Amino acid sequence: MEVKEIKKLPKATAKRLPSYLRNLKALESSGVIRIKSKEFAEITHVPSATIRRDFSYLGELGRSGYGYEVPFLIEVFSNLLATEEEKDIALVGVGNLGKALLKNNFRRNENLNITCVFDSDPSLIGTVFEGYYIHSMDELAEKVAENGLTVAITTVPSHHSQEAVDVIVESGITAILNFAPDRVTVPDEVNVRYIDLTTELLTLIFFDNQNHYKMPAVHFNEQ
Amino acid sequence: MEVKEIKKLPKATAKRLPSYLRNLKALESSGVIRIKSKEFAEITHVPSATIRRDFSYLGELGRSGYGYEVPFLIEVFSNLLATEEEKDIALVGVGNLGKALLKNNFRRNENLNITCVFDSDPSLIGTVFEGYYIHSMDELAEKVAENGLTVAITTVPSHHSQEAVDVIVESGITAILNFAPDRVTVPDEVNVRYIDLTTELLTLIFFDNQNHYKMPAVHFNEQ
Repeated sequence: MEVKEIKKLPKATAKRLPSYLRNLKALESSGVIRIKSKEFAEITHVPSATIRRDFSYLGELGRSGYGYEVPFLIEVFSNLLATEEEKDIALVGVGNLGKALLKNNFRRNENLNITCVFDSDPSLIGTVFEGYYIHSMDELAEKVAENGLTVAITTVPSHHSQEAVDVIVESGITAILNFAPDRVTVPDEVNVRYIDLTTELLTLIFFDNQNHYKMPAVHFNEQ
Repeated sequence: MEVKEIKKLPKATAKRLPSYLRNLKALESSGVIRIKSKEFAEITHVPSATIRRDFSYLGELGRSGYGYEVPFLIEVFSNLLATEEEKDIALVGVGNLGKALLKNNFRRNENLNITCVFDSDPSLIGTVFEGYYIHSMDELAEKVAENGLTVAITTVPSHHSQEAVDVIVESGITAILNFAPDRVTVPDEVNVRYIDLTTELLTLIFFDNQNHYKMPAVHFNEQ
């Protein structure tokens, strides 16, 4: 047994990790326990040479001609994506969705905790929900600095999303999970990830239609 | 102007559409208005020959050596993913998350409507939330048949997720959007899509860490 330290991954490799992990989990749940880079390439649509190079950054994950052990890859990639440190997270917007997030509060992962909560609604500010005191947006920058926060979740609806994100970015937050799917403008150094439930649902329906009957004809202009 | 009808797409092509659309939208928001298949291949990690073949199923979307117009592709792919028909959707689970979904009810897309609502909690059954009557799970099969439903959203937490999905599948539903990320077992003909907020958040934090400081060392056993 040898312990190996991983250097900073190339950004392109890092970007592929979540997709690798998702596909590996799907394989595992279909009972696949070993996979070759060529087969994995077909599933992920990433060239097999790229897969082998990506995996090589993470050490000796497989043997030539033998393939990779799926459960082992899942363990390595899960560890890689998991934060070793505790992350305190700010929540902006305490409507029904915000309340659902607070009630659950990522209890599946003990390192992730919403600890500071904000809203702009005067009827909510100063009240307590499930033990969380709801602060005004004016207090965001102060709380972010005080608690060294870098991550925020916003559930603010689309028409006020940019406004809320501006305040969040101004406060020093660099990573934002946004439940409003409309693209917001942020400085280069800020990461935004969108949860777009409408698109998820449309994708699901699209596949369902593909499975069950001939897809409705789509008309468009030829160029 | 010529109108063209699209035949059933190969399943592999269909699976790539959501990713194509997501990447095109990202390109558009960075101001890119035209792209060649080779450039798009670098972004999507799909070989350029595959991209050209996929696009060819959808008609003449671009000109050789000139590339594809990004806004036009977005329009075509959005139309393709959009349901032309109205989809009535069942919602199972009316906790805070279910309530948030009902309040919003996909109002961005007039074809998507949650119309039937179910819960197993006796204190909710028979009550009305935001105009929606909450039915018991026992009524699911009857309502699905009565309204010709094929799509359901479940917000039932992980430890009861399989149970709820079994009832949903039994009722005749073939497409399920599941907010509990643990994989459930369903027959082959049923599509399940998972919303996994913990993984989304971990992915965001992972990229944030990559950007801001050297990633924490990850240790694992070499094989």
